[in-house]
Amino acid sequence: MTQMLQAMHGKATAAIEIVANQENIPLDEIKRLMAAGQLIIPANPLHTSLMPIAIGRAAKVKINANLGTSQISSSTDEEVEKLHIAMQFGADTVMDLSTGKNIDETLGAMLSESTVPLGTVPIYHVFDQLKNLEEMRIEHLLEMIEHQAKQGVDYMTLHCGILQEHLTLVKKRLSGIVSRGGGLLAAWMHKTGKQNPLYEHYDAVLDILVKYDVTISLGDALRPGCIHDATDAAQIAELKTLGELTKRAWQRGVQVMVEGPGHIPLHEVEYNMQVQHELCHGAPFYVLGPLVTDCAAGFDHIASAIGAAVAGWKGASLLCYITPKEHLGLPNKEDVKQGVIAYKIAAHAADIAKGRKQARERDAAISKARVNFEWENQFNLTFDPETARKHHDESLSHDVFKQAKFCSMCGPKYCPMGLANSDNLI
Amino acid sequence: MTQMLQAMHGKATAAIEIVANQENIPLDEIKRLMAAGQLIIPANPLHTSLMPIAIGRAAKVKINANLGTSQISSSTDEEVEKLHIAMQFGADTVMDLSTGKNIDETLGAMLSESTVPLGTVPIYHVFDQLKNLEEMRIEHLLEMIEHQAKQGVDYMTLHCGILQEHLTLVKKRLSGIVSRGGGLLAAWMHKTGKQNPLYEHYDAVLDILVKYDVTISLGDALRPGCIHDATDAAQIAELKTLGELTKRAWQRGVQVMVEGPGHIPLHEVEYNMQVQHELCHGAPFYVLGPLVTDCAAGFDHIASAIGAAVAGWKGASLLCYITPKEHLGLPNKEDVKQGVIAYKIAAHAADIAKGRKQARERDAAISKARVNFEWENQFNLTFDPETARKHHDESLSHDVFKQAKFCSMCGPKYCPMGLANSDNLI
Repeated sequence: MTQMLQAMHGKATAAIEIVANQENIPLDEIKRLMAAGQLIIPANPLHTSLMPIAIGRAAKVKINANLGTSQISSSTDEEVEKLHIAMQFGADTVMDLSTGKNIDETLGAMLSESTVPLGTVPIYHVFDQLKNLEEMRIEHLLEMIEHQAKQGVDYMTLHCGILQEHLTLVKKRLSGIVSRGGGLLAAWMHKTGKQNPLYEHYDAVLDILVKYDVTISLGDALRPGCIHDATDAAQIAELKTLGELTKRAWQRGVQVMVEGPGHIPLHEVEYNMQVQHELCHGAPFYVLGPLVTDCAAGFDHIASAIGAAVAGWKGASLLCYITPKEHLGLPNKEDVKQGVIAYKIAAHAADIAKGRKQARERDAAISKARVNFEWENQFNLTFDPETARKHHDESLSHDVFKQAKFCSMCGPKYCPMGLANSDNLI
Repeated sequence: MTQMLQAMHGKATAAIEIVANQENIPLDEIKRLMAAGQLIIPANPLHTSLMPIAIGRAAKVKINANLGTSQISSSTDEEVEKLHIAMQFGADTVMDLSTGKNIDETLGAMLSESTVPLGTVPIYHVFDQLKNLEEMRIEHLLEMIEHQAKQGVDYMTLHCGILQEHLTLVKKRLSGIVSRGGGLLAAWMHKTGKQNPLYEHYDAVLDILVKYDVTISLGDALRPGCIHDATDAAQIAELKTLGELTKRAWQRGVQVMVEGPGHIPLHEVEYNMQVQHELCHGAPFYVLGPLVTDCAAGFDHIASAIGAAVAGWKGASLLCYITPKEHLGLPNKEDVKQGVIAYKIAAHAADIAKGRKQARERDAAISKARVNFEWENQFNLTFDPETARKHHDESLSHDVFKQAKFCSMCGPKYCPMGLANSDNLI
């Protein structure tokens, strides 16, 4: 029985107990939410190194780091290093999106090192083994899904919702299709004139996911790739299909999250969260950013952290990071770090906005340390103590300044916190 | 006659003509907005190198870069270098907040090099010339305001709105007072038991501002310094006073902007914009961030760009940047660059959300370049072409790859834009 089926039968798995503790939510409430599809714990029993976490509106907002080789750049070793960096800075989940050499080997190494849920996009590996895309058959896809399930993958992005009838809607777009897995399926559908095999054989897909208790992440092949295409007919049409597929997965006891954009202007982010919540019956929303402008290449971690913070506040449960390399190349180790930190900030800001007590407590703690000039405490309460310390020490490096009631911004004479404290104003 | 008085009399100054063009807003509308205090053009006639710009809800969202020496760090030459970096990356205004050696010399150098409006906080220089804070008299403040007006300063932050009766409200705070100029005044008021001299002698202050046509930036001495203190009684009490002072300045024909927070959780940003708009009768709002969490030291440019984007969308007219050094030290040149870029992104995202056509056009242009693999065009349409190019070239440095229909993220086989294009899906 899958975790979800157990929850439906009133059983609390070990993972449910762990996340109830983590989230400070009663066990019965976690069980109820999981049975209703509103909260998921992606956890393949074969992923033995996993520490389970919960994804859903009721839980702390989570962040995902995309990793993996490309045919041009990186290696298994490099990606494992990036995995450790991502986990060190607080990634709650990771995806191995490798398309380079030895996809199997990379995935195996990532799974054995990852203590967080790991997701994949199985069609990448399918495509790697084909000479021509047109050769692809449903059997290839089902075999790969089962193969990766056996490896221990916790969740899989499957673009089951893009349909033949959606393809004409893409023609109205400025950026067409920017989803890699979705683009492969769309190209196959366009070349063969056939319906999406993952849609046509959705029950066979679910059979495998039930068997291995793998969570489905319903991919958004038609997520907008620019502000111009945001919240358009293509995006919403696919989302509607994803809502139907969500219900069918739940009927089999398969946990679901739904993937979302992408590129969305700030004033449409809230609407995007609402429409997904409604069309997908409260299934957790897993968004990529969204980027609130197309112009920030080189700094897309910042442009998308803006959208991600608002998305998290308004209901997204898992925020997929975007790194400074987005649109320009495969992220290196430093890019992974910068992306994770930007998203820890966005997720934390969302948690505060959602009224999460623990989030506010951390802010109060660092603010107390700040006003009391406890420099080491302040550094340690940030998202990256090493960087905070480095910035401080750049101008005042001597240890004595860790006791100082000022920094190099104001100096002792002009520091407002020093002035206010010394005068007992506070 | 000040510019505002001229606008009230139906005259369009040269500056009004320039900004009408820049903003693509009819001349009469700019005149009407300026006469009503809803739009300002900070422009001291003695600042001869100035290119005027407009600040107000109807205009493009603007950004400010804080510069200036401290007693611990930097020099005139370094600050002039930072000024050029800030202008290069698109700062619309700058402040010289110097408190180090030779404040006068630094300000003079900044003014002669700055083509954007430049603001100061005159009390810093006053305090520099005193042995003890208690010695400060209104004459010191008035003399300094006139001295800096004569130097050509375009706008001055004057904390006229903090009153004796507000000081008890500060005691309930976690972070007390974090405004440097406001903290000096509060400490003086606390020590002497007297009312704020800038409030008591506000008419004398306005006399000077009228004479030199200097814009007043009503400082928020009581802006919250942490999430805990956000939108509290102290902040709102001072804001009410700033609303009264706004009207008094308008009666004299003095242009006004009102300064705002600081640290505000995401869900309170919109309310903060509304309450300022109401209490201050539509005077442009000049906000510092706001930071949506206290925990991001080392990355406060990101945490505050989130708040700034939402603030700009919901009505703030000028976004004061926060750099990665905030809370840790005086920003260096790289910090200034990073701060300005983060805020260009936030302001642009706000402009898109406000429905500004020109903003969307830029996004459409870069997205077209992207989907057509016009790499150089894409780089040049970002906020920092050099960084975008560097990121791209890190893995694909040869010139031939500037013609390639892929980057190192996906490579030629997996690029969704290549797939969709080649299949005529779009």
